[in-house]
Amino acid sequence: MVKRITSQSNTTIKQIRSLQDRKYRKQTGLFFIEGIRQVGEAIDSDYPLQLVIYCPSLLITDYATKILEKASYKGLELLEVSDDVFQSISNKDGPHGIAAVGYERFFKISDVNVEGLWIALENIQDPGNLGSILRSLDGAGGKGLFLVGESTDPFHPTAVRSSMGVVFYTPIIKLSLADFIEFVKLKDIFCVGTSCETTDSFKEQNYPKNMILIMGSEQKGMTDSMIDICDVLVNIPMTGRVDSLNIANAASIVLFEIHTRNMKND
Amino acid sequence: MVKRITSQSNTTIKQIRSLQDRKYRKQTGLFFIEGIRQVGEAIDSDYPLQLVIYCPSLLITDYATKILEKASYKGLELLEVSDDVFQSISNKDGPHGIAAVGYERFFKISDVNVEGLWIALENIQDPGNLGSILRSLDGAGGKGLFLVGESTDPFHPTAVRSSMGVVFYTPIIKLSLADFIEFVKLKDIFCVGTSCETTDSFKEQNYPKNMILIMGSEQKGMTDSMIDICDVLVNIPMTGRVDSLNIANAASIVLFEIHTRNMKND
Repeated sequence: MVKRITSQSNTTIKQIRSLQDRKYRKQTGLFFIEGIRQVGEAIDSDYPLQLVIYCPSLLITDYATKILEKASYKGLELLEVSDDVFQSISNKDGPHGIAAVGYERFFKISDVNVEGLWIALENIQDPGNLGSILRSLDGAGGKGLFLVGESTDPFHPTAVRSSMGVVFYTPIIKLSLADFIEFVKLKDIFCVGTSCETTDSFKEQNYPKNMILIMGSEQKGMTDSMIDICDVLVNIPMTGRVDSLNIANAASIVLFEIHTRNMKND
Repeated sequence: MVKRITSQSNTTIKQIRSLQDRKYRKQTGLFFIEGIRQVGEAIDSDYPLQLVIYCPSLLITDYATKILEKASYKGLELLEVSDDVFQSISNKDGPHGIAAVGYERFFKISDVNVEGLWIALENIQDPGNLGSILRSLDGAGGKGLFLVGESTDPFHPTAVRSSMGVVFYTPIIKLSLADFIEFVKLKDIFCVGTSCETTDSFKEQNYPKNMILIMGSEQKGMTDSMIDICDVLVNIPMTGRVDSLNIANAASIVLFEIHTRNMKND
């Protein structure tokens, strides 16, 4: 039985709107997912969802209708809402009539086995950067993400959107710097740090099959303790007046250097 | 003689606040510049500025004070404002007490000579992407940008900020697709388009010293007419479930592939 809500002041609707706020996300462990692509990826990935919200009059594409059918087939809770209610929870100018509420999911360090290419981001601040790094990581055949220290929220609406749904099927482990260091030492995983403090180009480095690429924060780069655990440091040689690149651009450059080499060796 | 303004409803202050609005920027040809780094780059580059605004009580770094001294030395018009007035024009949580109003500056196609590495962006929509591509272009030793078709505004506050000031010293030419095509044909410039429609990897391509790298819009890629003028198309081979990368990440990957090869050949 599908519920139908037509009031913007309905309690569930008010709670969904509150998920724009990080505090409320943290408190509830829930987050809001919008956009056909994102909701579709969440459902296709069997990502844990609390409910799927839709508005029949806005559901104009076949793809959106198919996603809704899948949600129903998978036994997810569906919530039908009126046009104005959907608009009231949407951040989009032209909403496509489908959204969802998901449970924030982090993997435990004991759940993962670092095989292949992983990335660790220390104290990353911008959710758009985080999301687009996840997207590049997936494109580069990467396996998972360590979110180290005081980092931004991967379930921030901007991170979810810019990840193109990668957040739903890529393991994310959130942990302290101390725990990360302990893990890396224990498992003896090869770590490549990106830093302006070296003159060794990322082009001249060999990258083992199993490794973690580490990037520091937008403002400050890696902390000294993080630099210490890196087996090698690489930089991206630059020519112009800027002294650094956007972190997502820098991560993508190195990820795809590693990826194209891995493809060649396969 | 330095003017001092203490009222938030002062006409100049109201006009500065209006520069957040693209319409008003277009109407006046002015834009707002905030952040020490950005204002510093604008002054160092002799970028045309209408005025420099500062607030003595917020000017706490030596770097900011030096920038102000340079502005004064260069004969720029200075406007001293009170703390609350500065806060009222600032978009930042922790404003650093220095800002400026610049004149939007586009280069004419007749002013430029395409030597070295250039980039053309067709219908790019996101100012953050545009800004971070400018930053990567500069880092990769690139010379200038063609903004083709209905593109976002390089003087949008987000574009200025994410360019790290590159917008102030890199030629930007805004033009229609028809004019761009005519120019490229007339000058016989080598054009490399990035497209998912080819399987030719960007790694396998030779890049001449003088060339334009072309990227399409975030949603739709290049138009057919743009694809037609490309001498070659390259793609970035991917492995995961995503079928494309963020445009700024993709641009950076190809720009730095070209850059590191140019460095080797120098």
